[in-house]
Amino acid sequence: MRDQCKILDCTIRDGGLVNNWDFSVEFVRDLYNGLNEAGVEYMEIGYKNSPKLLKGADSGPWRFLDENFLKEVIPEKKRTKLSALVDIGRVDENDILPREQSMLDLIRVACYIKDVDKALELVRQFHEKGYETSLNIMALSHVLEHDLVEAFAEIAQSPVDIVYIVDSYGSMDYKDIEHLADKFGQMLPGKQLGVHTHNNMQLAFSNTLAAKNKGVVYLDSSVYGMGRAAGNCPTELLVSHLKNPNYRLRPVLDIIEKHMLAMRQKWEWGYIIPYMISGTLNEHPRVAMALRDSERKDCFVEFYDTLTSPEPAGVK
Amino acid sequence: MRDQCKILDCTIRDGGLVNNWDFSVEFVRDLYNGLNEAGVEYMEIGYKNSPKLLKGADSGPWRFLDENFLKEVIPEKKRTKLSALVDIGRVDENDILPREQSMLDLIRVACYIKDVDKALELVRQFHEKGYETSLNIMALSHVLEHDLVEAFAEIAQSPVDIVYIVDSYGSMDYKDIEHLADKFGQMLPGKQLGVHTHNNMQLAFSNTLAAKNKGVVYLDSSVYGMGRAAGNCPTELLVSHLKNPNYRLRPVLDIIEKHMLAMRQKWEWGYIIPYMISGTLNEHPRVAMALRDSERKDCFVEFYDTLTSPEPAGVK
Repeated sequence: MRDQCKILDCTIRDGGLVNNWDFSVEFVRDLYNGLNEAGVEYMEIGYKNSPKLLKGADSGPWRFLDENFLKEVIPEKKRTKLSALVDIGRVDENDILPREQSMLDLIRVACYIKDVDKALELVRQFHEKGYETSLNIMALSHVLEHDLVEAFAEIAQSPVDIVYIVDSYGSMDYKDIEHLADKFGQMLPGKQLGVHTHNNMQLAFSNTLAAKNKGVVYLDSSVYGMGRAAGNCPTELLVSHLKNPNYRLRPVLDIIEKHMLAMRQKWEWGYIIPYMISGTLNEHPRVAMALRDSERKDCFVEFYDTLTSPEPAGVK
Repeated sequence: MRDQCKILDCTIRDGGLVNNWDFSVEFVRDLYNGLNEAGVEYMEIGYKNSPKLLKGADSGPWRFLDENFLKEVIPEKKRTKLSALVDIGRVDENDILPREQSMLDLIRVACYIKDVDKALELVRQFHEKGYETSLNIMALSHVLEHDLVEAFAEIAQSPVDIVYIVDSYGSMDYKDIEHLADKFGQMLPGKQLGVHTHNNMQLAFSNTLAAKNKGVVYLDSSVYGMGRAAGNCPTELLVSHLKNPNYRLRPVLDIIEKHMLAMRQKWEWGYIIPYMISGTLNEHPRVAMALRDSERKDCFVEFYDTLTSPEPAGVK
């Protein structure tokens, strides 16, 4: 049976958290063309946050997407649609053109559970401007179920198209994903679901498959897994494993061979022990990322002791 | 609920396929002590094949285990039991001491489906000598179901304690493992089951969890995933994720920090694209291993084209 899902490749957006969005225009073009040939339905080309509302003057252009720049990068859009992510309080709604004047098809709004109301207000505005919309509730492994149920009531009444299950800390296994997919499905009968995983425990691909088997439609991934800390579900595994005659592995292999191997030499992501530890402990990877930036990057036991000690401590 | 499973670490045995068993005595001792502290129930310390029956004069001592040497390596056995693997036609049964004179507790017999009868003859001899025994049917992804059913009849009547589901090519996902675990469980009601996975598609850990959730008791793993080609389910993930108060992550982190990082610099295993390709195509990794030993090791697209071409070809 053909898989009824859609792949959203977020290499540029989530991978940008690894290299401060230092991607060349040539690479982003190659990626777009390769993903299009591979049959990937969406490419998330960056953040559409506002440089007025967020420090980051040294970041690459994919952090603060500009429509004129996008038109230069991708002069001719093909079948693969484009998406961008925005964060609550970091996006200026007035920057967002009506969809018919924009290169973007889908705007995704990321938020923590306490900001769902603010996120849905943004969703409404983007919806009115004609975009497909998604709500990405981050850090679900830290959300109490009654707060989630309360949020579902609001979400169900909003015009949002897609609601994402986000395993921000890479701390979930397939049983967790199945439980959440069932709950989201029951509470949000009119919405399509998505999943965004992290690979701290080498479960990103498996969790994505588990979500797909539970009817989740939008599957986030990134080429060679490039994404913050342990990275994401690898795009190459999805296009090779899912049953859909449009998907092709070869163009993704080409991107990895031409670009990602050299990028992985320069920047670090993937299954690295401090990220495994933070995933196991269900924590944000920021402390592990700081460790990896320090001279004590390979002091795994000391790091584990620090995180599991009853006394307060930072990374030394 | 406490997980009722047992971990069998095969770093030395399967990892030896990566480095021709070039492990120092110091490392093997550290590994034994670390695994014992971590609560790991079994350590597979190598192959018990005969050097008379197999080329390999240049291999390290862990390929042709000798009882006197083992006593020097581990002068005092602790809680962690020792196992060894033998291959059909490569073991001399006369080399195997009665268990009460041996360092080994468990002897595992690996075979392809066509040699199950020969394997069970070995199992009978080892059983009579007092050992725990397992039968590891390799390459299950290439076995037709009616051949498997025929083998089950023989296996059910043998004295073997444990029957393994082996995903030699790393080509299975959790649905495949669940299907096999159900089938093995139904057809072999008196036997305990085990699982041995490979990580070609980043599914080794997830597949091991799926097997455990289906009642499989013996879970193979290796520290930092060290094993042939894409390697195995990482021991550190099992001891951190499974619910058993005996399991401790810290001693395994210590082994990784002290030994495995440097070993990974020297020898290669893990999620590497040619191994992903062979896993996806459900093939033995030997052609991919030859590629990684060649100058064209990173020519992924060419390799993919070779393997998927209708014309016969080897690695260039």
